Amino acid sequence: MSNDELSRLLGEAGSAYQVDTLKELVAGVLAAPLGPDSEAWMALVVAEPSERLKAELGAFMAALAATQTTARADYGARLAGLRDRLAAQGLAGVLVPHADEHQGEYRATRAERLAWLTGFTGSMGSAVVLRDKAALFVDGRYTLQAADQVDGALFEVRHLIDEPPSKWAAGQLDDGAKLGYDPWLHTEDQVAVLERALAAVGATLVACPVNLIDEIWSDQPAAPIAPVVPHPEAYSGRAPGEKRLEVAERLKAAGADSALLSLPDSIMWLLDVRGGDVGCTPLALSFALLQDDGTLDWFIDRRKLTSDLERHLGNGVTVRAPEEIGPRLDELVAVGKRILVDPASAPAWVAQRVRAAGGTPVKASDPCQLPKARKNPVELEGTRQAHRRDGAALTGFLAWIAEEAPRRLSNGGLGELEAAEKLAGFRAKNEQFRGLSFETISGAGANGAIVHYRASPETERHLGDGDLLLVDSGAQYLDGTTDVTRTIAVGQPSDEMRDRFTRVLKGHIAVATARFPHGTSGSQLDILARAALWQAGLDYDHGTGHGVGSYLGVHEGPQRVSKMPNRVPLEPGMIVSNEPGYYKTGAYGIRIENLVAVIESPVQDGDEREMLAFETLTLAPIDLALVEPALMRPDELAWLDDYHARVRERLAPLVDAATGSWLDGATRPIGQPATR
Amino acid sequence: MSNDELSRLLGEAGSAYQVDTLKELVAGVLAAPLGPDSEAWMALVVAEPSERLKAELGAFMAALAATQTTARADYGARLAGLRDRLAAQGLAGVLVPHADEHQGEYRATRAERLAWLTGFTGSMGSAVVLRDKAALFVDGRYTLQAADQVDGALFEVRHLIDEPPSKWAAGQLDDGAKLGYDPWLHTEDQVAVLERALAAVGATLVACPVNLIDEIWSDQPAAPIAPVVPHPEAYSGRAPGEKRLEVAERLKAAGADSALLSLPDSIMWLLDVRGGDVGCTPLALSFALLQDDGTLDWFIDRRKLTSDLERHLGNGVTVRAPEEIGPRLDELVAVGKRILVDPASAPAWVAQRVRAAGGTPVKASDPCQLPKARKNPVELEGTRQAHRRDGAALTGFLAWIAEEAPRRLSNGGLGELEAAEKLAGFRAKNEQFRGLSFETISGAGANGAIVHYRASPETERHLGDGDLLLVDSGAQYLDGTTDVTRTIAVGQPSDEMRDRFTRVLKGHIAVATARFPHGTSGSQLDILARAALWQAGLDYDHGTGHGVGSYLGVHEGPQRVSKMPNRVPLEPGMIVSNEPGYYKTGAYGIRIENLVAVIESPVQDGDEREMLAFETLTLAPIDLALVEPALMRPDELAWLDDYHARVRERLAPLVDAATGSWLDGATRPIGQPATR
Repeated sequence: MSNDELSRLLGEAGSAYQVDTLKELVAGVLAAPLGPDSEAWMALVVAEPSERLKAELGAFMAALAATQTTARADYGARLAGLRDRLAAQGLAGVLVPHADEHQGEYRATRAERLAWLTGFTGSMGSAVVLRDKAALFVDGRYTLQAADQVDGALFEVRHLIDEPPSKWAAGQLDDGAKLGYDPWLHTEDQVAVLERALAAVGATLVACPVNLIDEIWSDQPAAPIAPVVPHPEAYSGRAPGEKRLEVAERLKAAGADSALLSLPDSIMWLLDVRGGDVGCTPLALSFALLQDDGTLDWFIDRRKLTSDLERHLGNGVTVRAPEEIGPRLDELVAVGKRILVDPASAPAWVAQRVRAAGGTPVKASDPCQLPKARKNPVELEGTRQAHRRDGAALTGFLAWIAEEAPRRLSNGGLGELEAAEKLAGFRAKNEQFRGLSFETISGAGANGAIVHYRASPETERHLGDGDLLLVDSGAQYLDGTTDVTRTIAVGQPSDEMRDRFTRVLKGHIAVATARFPHGTSGSQLDILARAALWQAGLDYDHGTGHGVGSYLGVHEGPQRVSKMPNRVPLEPGMIVSNEPGYYKTGAYGIRIENLVAVIESPVQDGDEREMLAFETLTLAPIDLALVEPALMRPDELAWLDDYHARVRERLAPLVDAATGSWLDGATRPIGQPATR
Repeated sequence: MSNDELSRLLGEAGSAYQVDTLKELVAGVLAAPLGPDSEAWMALVVAEPSERLKAELGAFMAALAATQTTARADYGARLAGLRDRLAAQGLAGVLVPHADEHQGEYRATRAERLAWLTGFTGSMGSAVVLRDKAALFVDGRYTLQAADQVDGALFEVRHLIDEPPSKWAAGQLDDGAKLGYDPWLHTEDQVAVLERALAAVGATLVACPVNLIDEIWSDQPAAPIAPVVPHPEAYSGRAPGEKRLEVAERLKAAGADSALLSLPDSIMWLLDVRGGDVGCTPLALSFALLQDDGTLDWFIDRRKLTSDLERHLGNGVTVRAPEEIGPRLDELVAVGKRILVDPASAPAWVAQRVRAAGGTPVKASDPCQLPKARKNPVELEGTRQAHRRDGAALTGFLAWIAEEAPRRLSNGGLGELEAAEKLAGFRAKNEQFRGLSFETISGAGANGAIVHYRASPETERHLGDGDLLLVDSGAQYLDGTTDVTRTIAVGQPSDEMRDRFTRVLKGHIAVATARFPHGTSGSQLDILARAALWQAGLDYDHGTGHGVGSYLGVHEGPQRVSKMPNRVPLEPGMIVSNEPGYYKTGAYGIRIENLVAVIESPVQDGDEREMLAFETLTLAPIDLALVEPALMRPDELAWLDDYHARVRERLAPLVDAATGSWLDGATRPIGQPATR
């Protein structure tokens, strides 16, 4: 292929790129997901590329993509190659975690080292490779999938929770043995657990200077490169630079002069920017060092930034190459700066580097997490708007399925994948839509009972008469992030389904209507969602609610509504999901999920304390065919009618006439006793 | 005084004591509370003393007691004496905690070092004495009391929670300063917090080989000596020695060969014995070392033991002098034994000694705590019987007050102290009664709003028309420990009182009727007790429930029902209190407390999981004059009627006719809708 024309156009446009450097850039672009605007990356080459240049760039990318054919995986050879590295380095074994450098839920393809080595693609797991045996650790929900994907002759599949890798490894290693690990992929907290377990048998943990998988993964994808864009004040509600000063105060209060930030969503929030390096969350993978005067070093591949973006960042932000992070830490420690490092999220490498330079890291939580979680009024108004549009899209889908699913009963039934695609289509019509916020869960019948189900052509079911469809989905919009679950009955649901659905709904309403004093954590509220199920000897094996970002992660901390103890108080502006469920293995699954925002409760007569409450953000009908009114108290029935009235009122202006007519019926009053 | 006759009788009876050694014994007896049998201690002198000898021993004790007149406290001189010790030892200051060697809630008089030094007698506090200043730290509930009891010219009174002693001390000390502490009175966890705080300013914590207060407290009471008695199998439900084997397994599982036990209630439980060294709890202060073969070294003053008791202990238990604990630890470490030490409860001295001997302590919770908390069927049946008798006594009191309080209105009103004494009298009639399980809280009117109120002649109020009386009390019986709170209206309570009481009752019922899966902790259930208050903007600032022992501590762990995160699952056999409340400062206090036992829930149709529930143990009427039925749901009203029917049925056979007639009225059905 000749690139003469491209070369000429690049020169003409004054681009900093030549064909050879462009090739590296495009390798990075190909390693990032294709965003909603497939040509957005071209702005990284030339601020305003001509149509001609765009065409050449597109062809160049297509040609490069075509050369990236993946060789058929030979897991035996990969494992043998890794063992060669162990022998060369005098290691008894090595840890291969699922995590990347940012402990991220969504990762770059080059970080999928566990999948590359073992074939296992679940969202949680870990491997330990020793000289003569190897084990993959997965939790209960992935046991079957792991058995299916992984060669049992190469890897034993073991239970991640019952027998953590540290414990298993300790049982295998002799006194004096060395177990290697990549200090970029483990946090300090994780390293401490591992070290304790190994110390008990006299073995030690050894940090590898280079990741051993990276050494043998010859066609490992490039680090992703996607344009970083400003997140304007109209959405963030804050003037540029304000947050850096605010967080600087927090780090001073923690006794630090500088904070290492490794969570990309913290950095996106802090700098009011968004990226596109990974799927489902608008992140630019990077690290940062915030100083106590509010200035910041941003360690990021500069090729992701346009000059516009650098202007948006302003003078307080210095862009540095990722590899400068070590020398910069050394420099700060040398002048006596105390560096805050989050032992629960930062790579262990950071604290080790600080110590090697003669410093003592200040262990404290990432100082952005809490202020990021407390949404300001502009962010809250943004998310209300996003939820309104999202609700209209979801309602369009619900109206469609109400008509389509019964019609298809005689014809094999509507499939899970088609349903998910149709729903995504409704959302994509929205101008502010930036993609899904996670892979849609569309589970029909028995698949609905698999909590982390992802439909595939091999597993999908088609909706039969009397089936339930559980759809858990969400989207990223410029003004907010959504996450909603509705469970829909096709035909006549059974009495048992209605009983279970109603109990789940009672739990959902108990959370939605909770009043609670300042200082209350989500752990304290969790039981509200479960009590009606517990009374009937039922429960669900997942949390009740997770934090949600503002056009950021659909899962964010530090607050959580869960059985697991969590001391973080719910504060005004925090967004959490309210998603109780019920799952009957082999039969059906139920979940009702709305997002709610923590608000100051309206004052009532006699209140002695300032109370908090929730505002429900999600707007979409709850299937009345699944509600058994006899099980509900008058106040619960009133909540349902009030909610539906609000759904109808807010969504009706946004949907077409047919959908509006369906919506009227779907949100009709369920009937309530004369006295409330 | 001539002791010739006593000397002769001792010789005649073959006692091991002569007059001089007897004097030391009696000093110890005088340092222990006088138990229900004031002559029980004499069995320590002679197994079966003659009446003549008893009379002589009684006279001897009375004479010795008469010599123990306490000098009027000169706190200035005490503080100056302590500062002389600081100067002599080159210390910048010293910590004076409230705790004893066992971190006990009830302590020997000789352990009241904080009170001796400062005058402050509250149940929680700490002092730091520096060369030129000194501070007493108390929490919010004791601010007024401390100001009253303590000379402000000697001690600044500061806030224990807002500014912990470690933080204040760090702010006062220079680089290189040494702060002394007694390693017997602080746990390892506490020492770690102190060391971190001091390290930040370059100061260090220095263990004092001898307690500095003990060095200057010339008339410090002797260590208490009270007889240790067997706790028979009829109450403990376990054959002697069984528990030692069971706990030995637990310590092996924790990776230890030996466990140091410092909590006296753990030792009492483990050895099936009870003592009398401190008030309200039948404890013999001592330490123990359990080996992984079930044998045990008991470090206790042998003078507390009769030969009968040594037979009860059997061959597996070796009684050793308290001062042998150090050499014994050295011996075990020398032969490679791994010693389990609880960093949250054991004296820091223990782990320090293990380390000095070249060992590494195994940090883990006291291995007796969890099995002790799970009561066996015999213990549960014992506590049911104890609660029945206790309920009859309390009902006698309630019937008395129902008649007496209105009658006294015209005559100054019934006082808090008289009420408490009357109640104790009802309980003392019980043959198995062994004393109160804590000092009775008897709070009338505004005093009821002071959560940890203790009535005194200076503070007590008398009941007026429309007042509430809050009585929180309990007793030790051979077969169980009780703790119950009732709130009683005198005359016509206000609508607000009835509203608040009913909300507290709704919370109480929500806990009492909870069903929950295995693995649920008390922290998860806590909100059930509060939700009805929260809906009205109200709350209470204490936990909802604490563990209770079986003729042991009225407060025991590890389970708890509280806002504070606690991961300990509630398990069948555990006893906890259920005590929501409401307090209106300056006006009145409300609390409704029953003890409940965790049980396997009766299976219901459709249950998919094994559920747990509570059995309410406490039997006593709840004042219907304070209940507003309109605020209650039908299921709540049904619970109240069912409870009252059970109270009536179980207690009626145990009370006299007049009380029975009052009980009939007090437990009448409150009325309920036709459909339940």
